[in-house]
Amino acid sequence: MKNIPWQDKPENCTDVLWRHSENPIIDRYAIPTSNSIFNSAVVPFEDGFAGVFRCDNKAVQMNIFAGFSKDGINWDINHEPIEMQAGNTQMIDSDYKYDPRVTFIEDRYWITWCNGYHGPTIGIAYTFDFKEFFQCENAFLPFNRNGVLFPTKINGKYAMLSRPSDNGHTPFGDIYISYSPDMKYWGEHRCVMKVAPFEQSAWQCTKIGAGPVPILTDEGWLLFYHGVIATCNGFRYSVGAAILDKNEPDKVKYRSQPYLLAPAELYEMTGDVPNVVFPCAALHSHEEDKLALYYGAADTCTGVAYGKISEVVDFVKNNSL
Amino acid sequence: MKNIPWQDKPENCTDVLWRHSENPIIDRYAIPTSNSIFNSAVVPFEDGFAGVFRCDNKAVQMNIFAGFSKDGINWDINHEPIEMQAGNTQMIDSDYKYDPRVTFIEDRYWITWCNGYHGPTIGIAYTFDFKEFFQCENAFLPFNRNGVLFPTKINGKYAMLSRPSDNGHTPFGDIYISYSPDMKYWGEHRCVMKVAPFEQSAWQCTKIGAGPVPILTDEGWLLFYHGVIATCNGFRYSVGAAILDKNEPDKVKYRSQPYLLAPAELYEMTGDVPNVVFPCAALHSHEEDKLALYYGAADTCTGVAYGKISEVVDFVKNNSL
Amino acid sequence: MKNIPWQDKPENCTDVLWRHSENPIIDRYAIPTSNSIFNSAVVPFEDGFAGVFRCDNKAVQMNIFAGFSKDGINWDINHEPIEMQAGNTQMIDSDYKYDPRVTFIEDRYWITWCNGYHGPTIGIAYTFDFKEFFQCENAFLPFNRNGVLFPTKINGKYAMLSRPSDNGHTPFGDIYISYSPDMKYWGEHRCVMKVAPFEQSAWQCTKIGAGPVPILTDEGWLLFYHGVIATCNGFRYSVGAAILDKNEPDKVKYRSQPYLLAPAELYEMTGDVPNVVFPCAALHSHEEDKLALYYGAADTCTGVAYGKISEVVDFVKNNSL
Amino acid sequence: MKNIPWQDKPENCTDVLWRHSENPIIDRYAIPTSNSIFNSAVVPFEDGFAGVFRCDNKAVQMNIFAGFSKDGINWDINHEPIEMQAGNTQMIDSDYKYDPRVTFIEDRYWITWCNGYHGPTIGIAYTFDFKEFFQCENAFLPFNRNGVLFPTKINGKYAMLSRPSDNGHTPFGDIYISYSPDMKYWGEHRCVMKVAPFEQSAWQCTKIGAGPVPILTDEGWLLFYHGVIATCNGFRYSVGAAILDKNEPDKVKYRSQPYLLAPAELYEMTGDVPNVVFPCAALHSHEEDKLALYYGAADTCTGVAYGKISEVVDFVKNNSL
Amino acid sequence: MKNIPWQDKPENCTDVLWRHSENPIIDRYAIPTSNSIFNSAVVPFEDGFAGVFRCDNKAVQMNIFAGFSKDGINWDINHEPIEMQAGNTQMIDSDYKYDPRVTFIEDRYWITWCNGYHGPTIGIAYTFDFKEFFQCENAFLPFNRNGVLFPTKINGKYAMLSRPSDNGHTPFGDIYISYSPDMKYWGEHRCVMKVAPFEQSAWQCTKIGAGPVPILTDEGWLLFYHGVIATCNGFRYSVGAAILDKNEPDKVKYRSQPYLLAPAELYEMTGDVPNVVFPCAALHSHEEDKLALYYGAADTCTGVAYGKISEVVDFVKNNSL
Amino acid sequence: MKNIPWQDKPENCTDVLWRHSENPIIDRYAIPTSNSIFNSAVVPFEDGFAGVFRCDNKAVQMNIFAGFSKDGINWDINHEPIEMQAGNTQMIDSDYKYDPRVTFIEDRYWITWCNGYHGPTIGIAYTFDFKEFFQCENAFLPFNRNGVLFPTKINGKYAMLSRPSDNGHTPFGDIYISYSPDMKYWGEHRCVMKVAPFEQSAWQCTKIGAGPVPILTDEGWLLFYHGVIATCNGFRYSVGAAILDKNEPDKVKYRSQPYLLAPAELYEMTGDVPNVVFPCAALHSHEEDKLALYYGAADTCTGVAYGKISEVVDFVKNNSL
Repeated sequence: MKNIPWQDKPENCTDVLWRHSENPIIDRYAIPTSNSIFNSAVVPFEDGFAGVFRCDNKAVQMNIFAGFSKDGINWDINHEPIEMQAGNTQMIDSDYKYDPRVTFIEDRYWITWCNGYHGPTIGIAYTFDFKEFFQCENAFLPFNRNGVLFPTKINGKYAMLSRPSDNGHTPFGDIYISYSPDMKYWGEHRCVMKVAPFEQSAWQCTKIGAGPVPILTDEGWLLFYHGVIATCNGFRYSVGAAILDKNEPDKVKYRSQPYLLAPAELYEMTGDVPNVVFPCAALHSHEEDKLALYYGAADTCTGVAYGKISEVVDFVKNNSL
Repeated sequence: MKNIPWQDKPENCTDVLWRHSENPIIDRYAIPTSNSIFNSAVVPFEDGFAGVFRCDNKAVQMNIFAGFSKDGINWDINHEPIEMQAGNTQMIDSDYKYDPRVTFIEDRYWITWCNGYHGPTIGIAYTFDFKEFFQCENAFLPFNRNGVLFPTKINGKYAMLSRPSDNGHTPFGDIYISYSPDMKYWGEHRCVMKVAPFEQSAWQCTKIGAGPVPILTDEGWLLFYHGVIATCNGFRYSVGAAILDKNEPDKVKYRSQPYLLAPAELYEMTGDVPNVVFPCAALHSHEEDKLALYYGAADTCTGVAYGKISEVVDFVKNNSL
Repeated sequence: MKNIPWQDKPENCTDVLWRHSENPIIDRYAIPTSNSIFNSAVVPFEDGFAGVFRCDNKAVQMNIFAGFSKDGINWDINHEPIEMQAGNTQMIDSDYKYDPRVTFIEDRYWITWCNGYHGPTIGIAYTFDFKEFFQCENAFLPFNRNGVLFPTKINGKYAMLSRPSDNGHTPFGDIYISYSPDMKYWGEHRCVMKVAPFEQSAWQCTKIGAGPVPILTDEGWLLFYHGVIATCNGFRYSVGAAILDKNEPDKVKYRSQPYLLAPAELYEMTGDVPNVVFPCAALHSHEEDKLALYYGAADTCTGVAYGKISEVVDFVKNNSL
Repeated sequence: MKNIPWQDKPENCTDVLWRHSENPIIDRYAIPTSNSIFNSAVVPFEDGFAGVFRCDNKAVQMNIFAGFSKDGINWDINHEPIEMQAGNTQMIDSDYKYDPRVTFIEDRYWITWCNGYHGPTIGIAYTFDFKEFFQCENAFLPFNRNGVLFPTKINGKYAMLSRPSDNGHTPFGDIYISYSPDMKYWGEHRCVMKVAPFEQSAWQCTKIGAGPVPILTDEGWLLFYHGVIATCNGFRYSVGAAILDKNEPDKVKYRSQPYLLAPAELYEMTGDVPNVVFPCAALHSHEEDKLALYYGAADTCTGVAYGKISEVVDFVKNNSL
Repeated sequence: MKNIPWQDKPENCTDVLWRHSENPIIDRYAIPTSNSIFNSAVVPFEDGFAGVFRCDNKAVQMNIFAGFSKDGINWDINHEPIEMQAGNTQMIDSDYKYDPRVTFIEDRYWITWCNGYHGPTIGIAYTFDFKEFFQCENAFLPFNRNGVLFPTKINGKYAMLSRPSDNGHTPFGDIYISYSPDMKYWGEHRCVMKVAPFEQSAWQCTKIGAGPVPILTDEGWLLFYHGVIATCNGFRYSVGAAILDKNEPDKVKYRSQPYLLAPAELYEMTGDVPNVVFPCAALHSHEEDKLALYYGAADTCTGVAYGKISEVVDFVKNNSL
Repeated sequence: MKNIPWQDKPENCTDVLWRHSENPIIDRYAIPTSNSIFNSAVVPFEDGFAGVFRCDNKAVQMNIFAGFSKDGINWDINHEPIEMQAGNTQMIDSDYKYDPRVTFIEDRYWITWCNGYHGPTIGIAYTFDFKEFFQCENAFLPFNRNGVLFPTKINGKYAMLSRPSDNGHTPFGDIYISYSPDMKYWGEHRCVMKVAPFEQSAWQCTKIGAGPVPILTDEGWLLFYHGVIATCNGFRYSVGAAILDKNEPDKVKYRSQPYLLAPAELYEMTGDVPNVVFPCAALHSHEEDKLALYYGAADTCTGVAYGKISEVVDFVKNNSL
């Protein structure tokens, strides 16, 4: 990829991820109807970038919107939500849509999101052009969240991470993987990662969930994920990373004991849900050893953080649980 | 009314309500003993304005205080709480008083508030001069909050909105109306509005409660109300509006699907209870088509927002649930 | 009253209340549709007795049914629930009806019950003949249960005990009194009795509620009530009694520290809700110094217990909290 | 089927299901290690019957055991739990197994059960002889319970009912259907039935779950299911029935508003979990118009109830929600 | 000890503990004021037995009473609770007393119990004659329950087991040991046993607590204890046993995976708290290889079970977690 | 003490405590591994100050670190946590350490903290030089927090305040005192202060806990403590003060009804746990009538507030509950 958004690491910064200096890059009121624009996904598209954005409107209805950008920082987001057509099913009911992820596999862009069908489950759709979208069967029974596809088939099958949940503000959550021959029927469910013991890594002791589409590195799949601790004043969401085995991605090779990013800026500590950083996408360039991590801040606006792929991988290996 | 506080709508602002530029107008420490001054009520009085203010002291005891202002923005609040005399009852016990509303009916000003009598219920008092106050029988059995009188009798009876509650941080709440021939005995209880379905209007899906005294318009009673959503990090209070039928005010003609005001400024997002905007009073001038909405911010300080009555009514009609 | 049901106290029995030897007198399946028949009310009527019975059907819908008996023990309960006509209101909506009480005042029989109107509140109706029933305005806003009328006006007004509640299996509850000039508008709400401290009387430390219509004695109003303790395996309901001042019935003169009846028989300890005895009616004869207490057992069937009025009064005076 | 267990309906019984006179047919201590034997499944096998039984041992570990009977009433249950071999997967981990169902499809007996894999999910196995058992991939991600296969393929695919759950004593639960081309990958998830409104059918207002393997009738699939109400003293499990469309079994044609069987006998009202009747299997004979419903009682022992298929179907049609 | 209560094991009984045939030996109403008599402790005394009994009165106040018996089965319990004199402290406040244990050390009988001092903690007293009782300092800060002394000093110090708790129906609980040089100051707190994993021994997966005073055997200290599982209908209490190292009793040598006694008789399954067997004392005779275990049943009455010491020890060794 | 950190009271400030103008004095990232540095303790040491600091690292593991300062404002905190050696015990296990307090008694500095041993309890250690630390027996059984030693023996014994807790975000908590002859065995537990009634002093109505080591004044021991109110958006921690009797410190002579310091600055209202001020140490100079209170802000960083000892004492006396 060329044109990946980037800022060099600030002097004296010793962290492996650092924030874009003009964060938040997308304001909560960036489109006329929006109450908040956050947990959103972007990919390279044509000579720039496209994305699928979670915009909650001022009735606080959750929906996903397409958007486009030349530089990955300044975005034009459609004012109307994505309208789905029938893909591999006629059953495209949806009470709400949120927290999208996007990845290109073979010939098209696949979108997954948290889809309201008698509670949250994982919705799937594809597009070729970010204009027409074709919705497929929900991957799983409710209740589920944070469904994230791998960007390639694995052993000939589509592979998806997800986090089984319940019907409320789920106070538990581990990451599982499931496989499908056809994006319609799913099975071979395996547990990938569970929450960490409080004594060892408290920021991820309450629940964890996959973040951006995994990035293939020499060490395996680099998976950014969010971890949650339940403080006496609510949930606090931070960002960590793990390395999964390339061919058997239910095997965790390394997993960061420290977080890589946690709420510390005012736009992360205040907003509709204070103390949340929630990553949903990562642009990356292996050639330049760069990555740009897009994350929702305080369930209100959208930020970007930068890092070197190699540094992140080394950090995870050297600080593994 | 003349002299209604006012600032014109900022350029580029597309909202129907906009904030006073010097908010908060009343600081948490505005009187010597106060920890916070918020959910409070104001009315035109003599050549200026009078009000009843919720001031929690530094022991965090909740009480109501009288105050006066020439311009509705700069307030002199008494340093001692209102002392009640016996009105239509000798039983004027009160463990605490909070969240007052004030309205003029016929010949006097009526104050309602959340009154501590074995738990929260609706206290009633009247005054002619904001110096002497006469407390009446509590309107209802505990547990109740957000008792709001209509500014005229309806079909010959006093009418009061309220929100039945429980004895804690009530996680539910709908708006009811009750009638009284004499401000002492209450009956004919009817349900007016219930919380909205999460999928349709999530900001008001957990509980709702009447705000300022309703304003009579050509379309019916304009009722500002607060709505609450339970996020994983606590309750978030926003402001909406509804139009009730003029003669049968338990009939809701329109009700805003989007909120009109929600916590977005730092003084609304941080404080003793973050993420709260809570309206308790609205000055209005039909002649000038203006209204000034007074609201508590973060249960800590007091703000004002402005709007055109006609725009608000149109917005509610055009964006009705 | 003549013909009050009666059995003499068993030898060696030292309790002030003793059970009918053939309890339960009404089986859960006594009418074809019933799942359970319990918390029910009876009064002298013509040359025998009439009653209003809570019969939950096999869909577990709660409703009230009229019934008749010659001896107060063997009952013919109608197979169809009571159908209400408009009394002092047209608004006779009801999602469910349960836990009736009945009393005669002046010229008619008044029934109160827990009425489903956006949650439980107190329904009121009257009848002259137990054939036609006329429903009136609900006394209070939801949420309320255990509304019990006094059998005479007090100081010229109707008086009703009730227990403010919430919208579920309320884990709290105290007894209040309210007054009405006209059975339509209610006010002058006073707290009568609160739960007892755990250390002093644990069987009534979680919630209490009025039982049968109070009985006027020389000492004042004899009020049987239920008290609840929350054990680690659920709520347990027992029966106590209090003496209220004749003219100021919000004043408690005496109140039993020990219970008078608690779940100990198999039909009280097992059933739809184990460990419940719940009194709703008491026939009494001052001439014969007898009372017959009707109570629901395990929310499943109906039992009777007997006692001497004088002994009960003495017991309460001598064992008062 | 011949030799279906049977007792004629008792005189005066007006219910559509009636209990075996010698219930419980299997005692909690029927095998040396057992603490309880309940929610269990039986099928015709050779010249008698075979079954898979939930036996919790005295460490209260949950496992499933094979058993055999000539008459369906007297059972020889193996003293050792079923040992699984690899079926369509090597991943046959299981922390616990409970609540089995069994059905014959095409050439073999399929067993489903609640399987402990990082929490409860649906385990699948097959056997030809009830001696060797071959475990397959879990159908779904955790958390799920009450997985019940249809006895034939539907539109060429296996079909399974299940109830998505959480990781504890789930206080919610609806019935869904999913399809699989191969008993390995599952999709096309549809909601079949949700809990009933409290006002309409309270016994099934908290959660519902499929019971025995559905029985094909002229009206469609006869599905017995359990429904739960949360009383103030715990959950109470009853039995109802529904008729699902033959070809589109996510369409509910009829559904019983009243329950068909509810806890009323002492062995159902007392035991390890009081007030539970939980059906897991139904032998049936269309020729004789008979069915024998096997159910767990109080999570402790096993009972049988009898009924006429035609009467049950008529009852459901005539008493439908 | 001579005269230990005893009945031979019933034929066909394969359990290591079996119930007294005339259980319960003490009825809930055995003294005039009692609502229930259960969790109680007995010891050899003079030519028979003495005991300290938990009798809750009909106000459900919890207190302890002395009692005496010739045969250990038929008991005379005082009608007045034990009155304490000052022992090693003047501070003998007590809101309530329950669940006593008794043991003889050196020259006197020591009683421990759950003592109400701003919540439950461990009370200590001694007596020489079961007539005069001398109360000492509470062993620990609240909140604590199930304090059980060893019958000899260990390494020169008094040793006490206890279960740290919270201020309600504690849903957690492990067994600790503490030491004291003087029965006044306590320290050297060590964890002895924690709850078992649900998958391995679910009957003891929620909380555990020491039962009778430990019995010294060749294998070490034989400790009966209660274990609790939280079912969807409440807590269920069973009895297990462990062998602790003789000199280092915080070391668990063996611990029973299966329970030894669990609620199965009607008087254990129904009562004020259904499904409880709770052991507080064990008479034993090494000469005769007998033990008689006293236990509370359903928090209502008192039962006895018998066993061979050697069989119990063997069972624990052979069925150890 | 000389060199106590100090800033004069700002003009117009009417509070008895005022904040350091450059707060927070210690940033959350002050050492390379830290996520937050807060609830920490300082004492005069050599010619400056030493301290023990709670630094949670970026894995959110809680530990205590030594640090040194010339002026009490600028601190050098070690980059490695304190490593303990065996003191009066070999058992120095610790899952985590947090919220230290430090005081000098006789010949050495004693540190107490919340120590993870099967849950939180009170750890004790001593040092002579802040280089070598010797860990002693935990004072109490779990669960306990906020253990604070008096700076002198009282009646010949060590005395410690603590707050019995449970194993989570304890929603209750009162202050107790215990005594020890030897820093190993503890007893004579007395209740000192309980939470205040909501109506009288709501900021301290949910839980309270001792803060810095008490300061001896002419009036008795000046104890700063934290108080907590549970708002609908989480716990809010404020600072109050009490005066305990010099010789019988379980006797409270005065106790502040208003708080002395409450969250009002942005660094107190936002952070990992918003709305927390939590005092753990107070430098003081009787000669200069000064004190410097160190407190954790928002569980994130460290602040200082100043006050006059005499003014604080007077305030507490004049505003006592």
